[in-house]
Amino acid sequence: MIDPPTKFAATAVPENIGSQLFSLTSELYPIPRSITGHGFRRSLDVLRRFLPIEIHEVPSGTQVLDWTVPDEWNLRRAWIKDPDGRVVVDSDLHALHVVGYSEPVHAHLSLADLQQHLHSLPDQPDWIPYRTSYYKRTWGFCLAHRQRESMRPGTYEVTIDGTLAPGHLTYGELLVRGRTSEEVLLSCHGCHPSLANDNAAGMALATHLAQFLSLRSLHYSYRFLFIPGTIGSITWLARNEETVSNIRAGLVISCVGDRGDPTYKRSRQGDALIDRAAAHVLKHRAGGHTILDFSPYGYDERQYCSPGFNLPVGCLMRTPNGKYPQYHTSADDLNFIDAASMEDSLRIYLEVIDLLEHDRRYINLSPKGEPQLGKRGLYRATGGGDLATSQLAMLWVLNQSDGNHSLLDIAERAAMSFTIIKEAAAALEQGGLLQESE
Amino acid sequence: MIDPPTKFAATAVPENIGSQLFSLTSELYPIPRSITGHGFRRSLDVLRRFLPIEIHEVPSGTQVLDWTVPDEWNLRRAWIKDPDGRVVVDSDLHALHVVGYSEPVHAHLSLADLQQHLHSLPDQPDWIPYRTSYYKRTWGFCLAHRQRESMRPGTYEVTIDGTLAPGHLTYGELLVRGRTSEEVLLSCHGCHPSLANDNAAGMALATHLAQFLSLRSLHYSYRFLFIPGTIGSITWLARNEETVSNIRAGLVISCVGDRGDPTYKRSRQGDALIDRAAAHVLKHRAGGHTILDFSPYGYDERQYCSPGFNLPVGCLMRTPNGKYPQYHTSADDLNFIDAASMEDSLRIYLEVIDLLEHDRRYINLSPKGEPQLGKRGLYRATGGGDLATSQLAMLWVLNQSDGNHSLLDIAERAAMSFTIIKEAAAALEQGGLLQESE
Amino acid sequence: MIDPPTKFAATAVPENIGSQLFSLTSELYPIPRSITGHGFRRSLDVLRRFLPIEIHEVPSGTQVLDWTVPDEWNLRRAWIKDPDGRVVVDSDLHALHVVGYSEPVHAHLSLADLQQHLHSLPDQPDWIPYRTSYYKRTWGFCLAHRQRESMRPGTYEVTIDGTLAPGHLTYGELLVRGRTSEEVLLSCHGCHPSLANDNAAGMALATHLAQFLSLRSLHYSYRFLFIPGTIGSITWLARNEETVSNIRAGLVISCVGDRGDPTYKRSRQGDALIDRAAAHVLKHRAGGHTILDFSPYGYDERQYCSPGFNLPVGCLMRTPNGKYPQYHTSADDLNFIDAASMEDSLRIYLEVIDLLEHDRRYINLSPKGEPQLGKRGLYRATGGGDLATSQLAMLWVLNQSDGNHSLLDIAERAAMSFTIIKEAAAALEQGGLLQESE
Repeated sequence: MIDPPTKFAATAVPENIGSQLFSLTSELYPIPRSITGHGFRRSLDVLRRFLPIEIHEVPSGTQVLDWTVPDEWNLRRAWIKDPDGRVVVDSDLHALHVVGYSEPVHAHLSLADLQQHLHSLPDQPDWIPYRTSYYKRTWGFCLAHRQRESMRPGTYEVTIDGTLAPGHLTYGELLVRGRTSEEVLLSCHGCHPSLANDNAAGMALATHLAQFLSLRSLHYSYRFLFIPGTIGSITWLARNEETVSNIRAGLVISCVGDRGDPTYKRSRQGDALIDRAAAHVLKHRAGGHTILDFSPYGYDERQYCSPGFNLPVGCLMRTPNGKYPQYHTSADDLNFIDAASMEDSLRIYLEVIDLLEHDRRYINLSPKGEPQLGKRGLYRATGGGDLATSQLAMLWVLNQSDGNHSLLDIAERAAMSFTIIKEAAAALEQGGLLQESE
Repeated sequence: MIDPPTKFAATAVPENIGSQLFSLTSELYPIPRSITGHGFRRSLDVLRRFLPIEIHEVPSGTQVLDWTVPDEWNLRRAWIKDPDGRVVVDSDLHALHVVGYSEPVHAHLSLADLQQHLHSLPDQPDWIPYRTSYYKRTWGFCLAHRQRESMRPGTYEVTIDGTLAPGHLTYGELLVRGRTSEEVLLSCHGCHPSLANDNAAGMALATHLAQFLSLRSLHYSYRFLFIPGTIGSITWLARNEETVSNIRAGLVISCVGDRGDPTYKRSRQGDALIDRAAAHVLKHRAGGHTILDFSPYGYDERQYCSPGFNLPVGCLMRTPNGKYPQYHTSADDLNFIDAASMEDSLRIYLEVIDLLEHDRRYINLSPKGEPQLGKRGLYRATGGGDLATSQLAMLWVLNQSDGNHSLLDIAERAAMSFTIIKEAAAALEQGGLLQESE
Repeated sequence: MIDPPTKFAATAVPENIGSQLFSLTSELYPIPRSITGHGFRRSLDVLRRFLPIEIHEVPSGTQVLDWTVPDEWNLRRAWIKDPDGRVVVDSDLHALHVVGYSEPVHAHLSLADLQQHLHSLPDQPDWIPYRTSYYKRTWGFCLAHRQRESMRPGTYEVTIDGTLAPGHLTYGELLVRGRTSEEVLLSCHGCHPSLANDNAAGMALATHLAQFLSLRSLHYSYRFLFIPGTIGSITWLARNEETVSNIRAGLVISCVGDRGDPTYKRSRQGDALIDRAAAHVLKHRAGGHTILDFSPYGYDERQYCSPGFNLPVGCLMRTPNGKYPQYHTSADDLNFIDAASMEDSLRIYLEVIDLLEHDRRYINLSPKGEPQLGKRGLYRATGGGDLATSQLAMLWVLNQSDGNHSLLDIAERAAMSFTIIKEAAAALEQGGLLQESE
């Protein structure tokens, strides 16, 4: 935290923020991450150049809610040699070539036996699929279907060189403190190897967002989590069960780099402040967008929104998981994302946070009839013509500020953007006509 | 009741059920029924070959709510002879030829005087209309308009040979007992003579449905009523005023044999369990369907949904009353219905009952985070690819089972069929992750 | 009040009411009104030929809520002479030629200096705009843009001959007493000079409406206000703060003479009785209509619906303020309105009032099952055919009259006009089956 911090303003992002986001994503992209292991730790080290992220190490075997922290997986290299002894599949060439959490193996097999351990996509013959087997011990390779079909019968040699043994689950956590202990949770999964949109881009966005917020004076405290998917959020929830009630709003950050329109997936509550805020921001932006109802499949909102927690956490993304063909394949690479889309995503996050920061209830101090705005310099002098939008916004704020309506309520009823309503409230407060409600 | 009964399963209907339904309808069709009298009794005798229906006889003059049980009407024969002495209209040829509850008459009249007692349909000149006059003493004949127009001036002889005198109102009742005293009411009117869809088909469907249920182990008790329309439900309500509060759901069975799409008319409550169950079943079936709001005109739901009772009773039919031209005419005959439509109707009734039987609230016993389904054999081992529908259903059931949501609530929120959600709940209950709520 | 008064019936308007409305509007149109002064007084004098309107005079300088009653403005004449000494702009030719509340001036100016005091409409070059400056002392002229562009350089002589000095604010008030002290507020602004639709037509409609009501026996008391816009309603509210709680419904009368479809703008409450009544009436009339949500800009509903009062007052008009190009220009003249539109507006007001007068809750005295309507002569004797609308309306009233539903609730649920439901209720009440609820 820098002191004295600047007042929060969503628009004050650096001009080259898009290329910064893309650059950090590019650095994270090739690192072979999994839900545990050195790849995850190396990724956090990259982010710690920007932020004082706290590192947590949780031993394998630890009970977390209904789950157990698994053994730690570290891969050195995995390859397949064809009957001629040529390496035809190599994890050094693409991290997706090995099934995540494959147990170590060295063997010679017929092609037929090898096929039981191969994964490919007949419908997308040039792409390598992403596959894992965290909780059932097995091993396997992923490859392009076209390559698989070209493999001739014969004896193949396979090696998966690595360790799958007791160790730790690693995650990063950062609290950007605001004036209150009420928290906004921002969670991104960092367990996917060499998938750009899902979720190297999300880790980069979270990092720059945290950096931006840490320079501002904030109402809420913002808690950033850099965790492995599912087991990471379950581990964090298990260790913080007593304090999650501080969370007033939250967003899962994923798939924020592709060129699709933004998408917001509602929390289980469905009408929480974060749900209304995200929908409002998207509705008042140019271009298309999609609002999805909650469903219990997706990212870590599954855990935050489990019935025993039921936190107001949604998911703000561009094209949702499973809704683009490149999803969970090698085609989710750095060409699939771009700097402009990442910048746009960051701006949307900032607008949503701007709304959370400024959504208050006010009381009209002159509630009987309209107050005379003209004598306070807040209203046009000449009557008869059209009214300016900013003046109409003031009339809305005055009319609705009876203590029952927040600025977001007013913006929605007035069908105006939160920004215009917020500025009208500021002018009225300065004019002595409005006071923040208890 | 057969002991031990089979567990309820909507799908286990006999293969030839459609032809059984049609056959029973065909047997009922020609019987000249009215709201009282021998025709109604003979019809119940037919149904008693299948089921131990209890027969109630209520004396004429009995006060029932705001009404009085009318005299009993029994027709021997009604005919008109033309000026040449030829019988041109004859109740033996079609039961609709005489106005229901016509008082006995034998007279010679001019054609002009006779016209005052004739009913026909100018817009449907080949069909005989169905007309009654239960509570105002008169007499009349119904005939095809084409025939009426061909009648020459002259003296006609008319005879209505029968009795309209103190006797009884007859109705049938059958209780198929379940494990609880909570009741589902299934009511069909049986007062219409020679109208196949309205409601010989309904009587047949009710009979086979009751037979099917009587062989199963049931949560609810199912009360079947075979009654004359309006005065029958009023009589039953008057005699059972103290116990109607046991009724948790109900359906009026009518117009279940025509080839139109199924239609559900909501109860007066509008959002009762039966309303949601019927709408859900229709929505998740292939083909079209219609959901109608309650209105106080139609069949006996008018009485069950009167404000002093306000029972959760809807009406599940195919084409509604008054919405097909054949309605209440001789064209509502056995050609207007078919076995396939009747079977389809029965299956819909069974699916709705299946939903009622299995709609429970459960508690997720591992509500913090998702429980680890994989270690219980309930989840795929390899991650990264698409999720099966059955697994998504399990995630929905776990996420929503906080004691506030029934399986139907969950199915609606998940936009999945109740059947899939029910099966997911069963798997989770077996896996020790779910427990029925109090 | 005439004694004995006729029962209220919306349809009993005089045949020539349209021409009466137009004629009164034509008489009011040329009078040069402002928010204070002789023009407003003369207008009230015209209306007092029809009604015993009470005149209130409030001294300049009086504090009213957040406002102060301004000085009184009386214009004798305002004109501009061109360099050749010819009068080219003259308030005697059109009242809009002078900016309302211009301070007195007599000066010689160059064209360039004069331009600072001129107002015109480049997009509508033949129309004179309407402009005012009530609370900032200045002066100005309004003229057609075409004329303005033809003005040659040179020295112009301007004169605004009048007074702007302490005096009074004038308004008119009339209470048409009903059987209860519950009030319906009908408010029209009368401060606009020579604008026919906005609001000479509204003053005429209010006058004839009040006259019509004063001859009837009424449930509610109807309070008519003839006030200057904004400062008038603020003054009235300030002086009647203690008694506004008697107001159960209200309408602001404006723009009732143009040929557009009727428009209802909801009160701030949004679902008040007046909101539902006006929407119901418009929905069940032939032709188009528009329902607008409340917004805090428009006419005096801004004041009545300020949060400190929050009265159930909507605005019933034809084309809304600002939604027709002639709005606040000299083109809002007597050609812009017509007798038929004014009559149609009056009839809509009367239908809304008819609904308010008759919207009661009733109790079905025979709530268990349907009562037997036939034995009371309220139902057809012959069964089997179609049901008349009036009989279906009776079934709806009986079914819904459990003390929780008003006739308007029933009309909405039945999707029938209030009139049909009202008549059904009257028949049932006469038949002893319905009783007004407490």
